[in-house]
Amino acid sequence: MTLLESILAYNKDFVGNKEFENYTTSKKPDKKAVLFTCMDTRLQDLGTKALGFNNGDLKVVKNAGAIITHPYGSTIKSLLVGIYALGAEEIIIMAHKDCGMGCLDVSTVKDAMKERGVTEETFKIIEHSGVDVDSFLQGFKDAEENVRRNIDMVYNHPLFDKSVPIHGLVIDPHTGELDLIQDGYELAAQNK
Amino acid sequence: MTLLESILAYNKDFVGNKEFENYTTSKKPDKKAVLFTCMDTRLQDLGTKALGFNNGDLKVVKNAGAIITHPYGSTIKSLLVGIYALGAEEIIIMAHKDCGMGCLDVSTVKDAMKERGVTEETFKIIEHSGVDVDSFLQGFKDAEENVRRNIDMVYNHPLFDKSVPIHGLVIDPHTGELDLIQDGYELAAQNK
Repeated sequence: MTLLESILAYNKDFVGNKEFENYTTSKKPDKKAVLFTCMDTRLQDLGTKALGFNNGDLKVVKNAGAIITHPYGSTIKSLLVGIYALGAEEIIIMAHKDCGMGCLDVSTVKDAMKERGVTEETFKIIEHSGVDVDSFLQGFKDAEENVRRNIDMVYNHPLFDKSVPIHGLVIDPHTGELDLIQDGYELAAQNK
Repeated sequence: MTLLESILAYNKDFVGNKEFENYTTSKKPDKKAVLFTCMDTRLQDLGTKALGFNNGDLKVVKNAGAIITHPYGSTIKSLLVGIYALGAEEIIIMAHKDCGMGCLDVSTVKDAMKERGVTEETFKIIEHSGVDVDSFLQGFKDAEENVRRNIDMVYNHPLFDKSVPIHGLVIDPHTGELDLIQDGYELAAQNK
């Protein structure tokens, strides 16, 4: 059975057996927060459970490395819409130790692309269209530094309400242990 | 107790009681897939449970509306890195019905920003710096159309390996019921 077939078969039973009743919650986040973190497999459940969050507590935004790429990209958009339209009042930005984006070798990724059919010509066209592929793919050196950089981008964003606390955390993907990088209340208070 | 205090207190107990042992998994996604979906509160658990996925099965990418904003933004980067470097072999793109981004009134969001201190002058400066704030904040009209547009963007991305299946789904956030929009194997087969 393919992955898609198994998903659809499972889903038919899930709906038929009314298992969704275990997950009923409202549209608004009960804990009034948006959590932005990494897509890492190990954080699939740990990323919320180690913080004490249950189903329905949060908006959850995730990408590779929990890196904010652009001030007008989809991550900032998600945080702004969460705050201004969808009931969130605090932001939690959480990177993690031992992150795939923390040790990503861009040249190895590009080699994998080439092996699987992306031609030198394509790379050339992209580069000459103004895209720096190395910058596009790059990760970060230090999880804490990444969190600080993200907070700086959100806090100083022209459309951000600086009275909204942005907390910064780094999680250990093995134990779930949190390091506090930034107390968002302190940051928000500086501006009151 | 503030939200941050309660998170840190909970986490201390979580680590001390070795509750992390319930969530131990490897870095590689067991089901060899990346799931891209919405940050919606109701999908916090339902978004994986209704598909039969357990902890450790997936890389999970999430943003507001499951909208791919830019071909060289963080969502595409997450999918590419997942495929070329982190063990994923299939992509699942899943939007949902009754989405906050499906009925988002951009002018209401801008009004909220103004009420909370973003000045007309700031909007003017941003617009004259080349950013169309309306386009930046906008959602989508139709979840299925959004999924099809996303698939088109990934499938035709210059750095994408077209032999990787991209499945398209729309989930009902109340029941978890899935509508199949695109069988990714069919799409991938067209290119073989």
